[in-house]
Amino acid sequence: MALRAEIISVGTELLLGEIVDTNAVFLSQELAALGIELYHRTTVGDNARRLQEVITTALARADLVITIGGLGPTADDLTKETVAAVLGLPLVLDRPSLARIEAYFARIGRPMTENNYKQALIPEGGEALPNRNGTAPGVSVRKEGKWVVCLPGPPRELRPMFHDYVRPQLAAASRGVIRSRVLRLCGIGESALVETIADLLANQTNPTLAPLATEGEVRLRITAAAATVAAADAAIAELEQKLRFRLGPAIYGVDDDTLEAIVVGLLQQRGETLAVAESCTGGLLANRITDVPGASAVFERGVVAYSNRAKTELLGVPAPVIQRAGAVSSEVATLMARGIRERTESDWGIGITGIAGPGGGTAEKPVGLVYFALAGPGTNLVREARFAGDRQQIKRRTTQAVLDLFRRTLQSLDGKMLSKTDA
Amino acid sequence: MALRAEIISVGTELLLGEIVDTNAVFLSQELAALGIELYHRTTVGDNARRLQEVITTALARADLVITIGGLGPTADDLTKETVAAVLGLPLVLDRPSLARIEAYFARIGRPMTENNYKQALIPEGGEALPNRNGTAPGVSVRKEGKWVVCLPGPPRELRPMFHDYVRPQLAAASRGVIRSRVLRLCGIGESALVETIADLLANQTNPTLAPLATEGEVRLRITAAAATVAAADAAIAELEQKLRFRLGPAIYGVDDDTLEAIVVGLLQQRGETLAVAESCTGGLLANRITDVPGASAVFERGVVAYSNRAKTELLGVPAPVIQRAGAVSSEVATLMARGIRERTESDWGIGITGIAGPGGGTAEKPVGLVYFALAGPGTNLVREARFAGDRQQIKRRTTQAVLDLFRRTLQSLDGKMLSKTDA
Repeated sequence: MALRAEIISVGTELLLGEIVDTNAVFLSQELAALGIELYHRTTVGDNARRLQEVITTALARADLVITIGGLGPTADDLTKETVAAVLGLPLVLDRPSLARIEAYFARIGRPMTENNYKQALIPEGGEALPNRNGTAPGVSVRKEGKWVVCLPGPPRELRPMFHDYVRPQLAAASRGVIRSRVLRLCGIGESALVETIADLLANQTNPTLAPLATEGEVRLRITAAAATVAAADAAIAELEQKLRFRLGPAIYGVDDDTLEAIVVGLLQQRGETLAVAESCTGGLLANRITDVPGASAVFERGVVAYSNRAKTELLGVPAPVIQRAGAVSSEVATLMARGIRERTESDWGIGITGIAGPGGGTAEKPVGLVYFALAGPGTNLVREARFAGDRQQIKRRTTQAVLDLFRRTLQSLDGKMLSKTDA
Repeated sequence: MALRAEIISVGTELLLGEIVDTNAVFLSQELAALGIELYHRTTVGDNARRLQEVITTALARADLVITIGGLGPTADDLTKETVAAVLGLPLVLDRPSLARIEAYFARIGRPMTENNYKQALIPEGGEALPNRNGTAPGVSVRKEGKWVVCLPGPPRELRPMFHDYVRPQLAAASRGVIRSRVLRLCGIGESALVETIADLLANQTNPTLAPLATEGEVRLRITAAAATVAAADAAIAELEQKLRFRLGPAIYGVDDDTLEAIVVGLLQQRGETLAVAESCTGGLLANRITDVPGASAVFERGVVAYSNRAKTELLGVPAPVIQRAGAVSSEVATLMARGIRERTESDWGIGITGIAGPGGGTAEKPVGLVYFALAGPGTNLVREARFAGDRQQIKRRTTQAVLDLFRRTLQSLDGKMLSKTDA
């Protein structure tokens, strides 16, 4: 019989609608992928009596209760205390957790205040789950056939903790396996994608296939249920092969891959370097590239040339060209890419100019109009694009299109090299 | 006495994590604004028995139950049927709703299928709520002091229906209002904050005060219930004044303010400009500043000087200094800030250097060690800091500390100017 779970999100800020409960969505997806049945999700505020009631109700109808939030040092963080009370267990000090909290404060050079000791208390007989990105440990505690897992509220703390400690335990407890693989696509819209694979989407049972459009890309999730990991993976691989045959280069990666990590990886393989010159994206492209560990081996520098003067001084774009063609033009994007490439002696240069809004648009050059160029060995490309959305969305969609152009260019060069070697 | 509500979201797709429940967030905000107490939100799948149980539970602890979803024409749309069963009311045909559904199909030129009649059925004695953007009407039904409102799942159907029909009824039924204000703080940890205002946090009733720690900052939410907006706002203002007296410059803004928007606003007021030189933050600071609409008036350029060569070429940091002190040092941060300021003739220059990890750390200079400097009129500041977390967190926390130092510096200059004027 499948494990039956219930999720309880704790926090008055949720009931006031101040934050969106992305943790509950994340955990729902994870439980579905593990083949664990989820029949109820409940949200309750920072109130001891009501929290106690919903935990009691959840334990009556589920084998596994996962709580989110309420593990911090303040007086309105009540989750562990309440779980312990419902289970009839005392709270005891977990010395390894206390040591980790003390080490955390030593590392950031701040005194540890008294109320942080509370975070090292866990229900007797429970297991503390280390927190990679914060001070509050999680808790896993079992009693009389029931299992309660308490996770911290910040997603950056909850996700690694779930991945490292909870998912392996759940997978071991759940019968059979459910495996998932996400294909990540760029440069194709969701509607066009759905038309291309309409027959594969229709009448699917196992594996299932679900498209999901997000900011500037589309994800395709393949999920297979089987008796063993090997059987589930084989079923996924068979469907993935069909999808790759249809969709080819639109698939840029799988699972947690990002476009920037793919691009940095391709450059590392080729032993090449990149420098970027940004105007309307304002540093977002450099920021995304430098989010990738090890980016320093391929990324030497970037400039954010917001003003015309900066475009001339830092990139050598002649002032008369800016005056004639306009700062937002394919000419200026091209000269920005070439300028940063030549001045840094990098293998590749990228130039971006456009209008991120909300001000600055005209009838001829509206908000969302963007030009971006790529300069490299034997390569000079420039593209015009129009993006919808607010300022941050236009910045994000622009960098997505730029990284995708660069990825496809690098991959087609690799393809050509491969063909030559084959011949 | 305030009306007490509960929200029930219906749909198996929610429990599978396939969609985010933005409707529940929207309704939570609306209820809070109307002064209606919301103590529980529940999510349940398309299952008659479990839906009946959660509606029964909700009616036992709330005066008003709002359901979302399950009003469509298909067999797994069960909400109205289940509400009618729980209240002991038969379903009856609502002729105006049937006429609207028939008119809808005539308008789109498609035959109306049999299962659409189901959408025109409502619990006896209830009121049908017209749907501006779809076929399924909503329902409002009262019995024995309890009130159930059923809304459709698609947000573009739910929101206008709530606005046109439900909100006016709720406003009429609700006594008083609830108002909230969020103070945003930087440069103080949650634990230290809680100790500083322990007496204000203890025994609070109305207004209530809730701290919430997020990435590199803390929020304090003040919530007041009162008979009128003016009375609630006065109660909030009184508590805010006490908090500002205690916490002073740690409070950088309110509600949706961001540090970067505050900094851009201060520069705009002063008519001054900024240029930034980043190493370990890799463009994130420039990106955050250029996220603010109108940043181009105060932000002229940024450079991401990842390599030592870039630090020398773009910023004039002498190579011997880098060799002697190390690229990650207070000397280099200071020279980066001065270099970008002088070369761009900006009023202010910021320099950042550090180790974002995961590689590159040593015993002497560990991952998370960061130096940042601020150069400006009569100002030369440099700070050393150690941040915990992964690469992206270290980047984020560094920019948060840099923006906070800059904000405090600008505000203290404004304060001095004010004093001079006063004298």
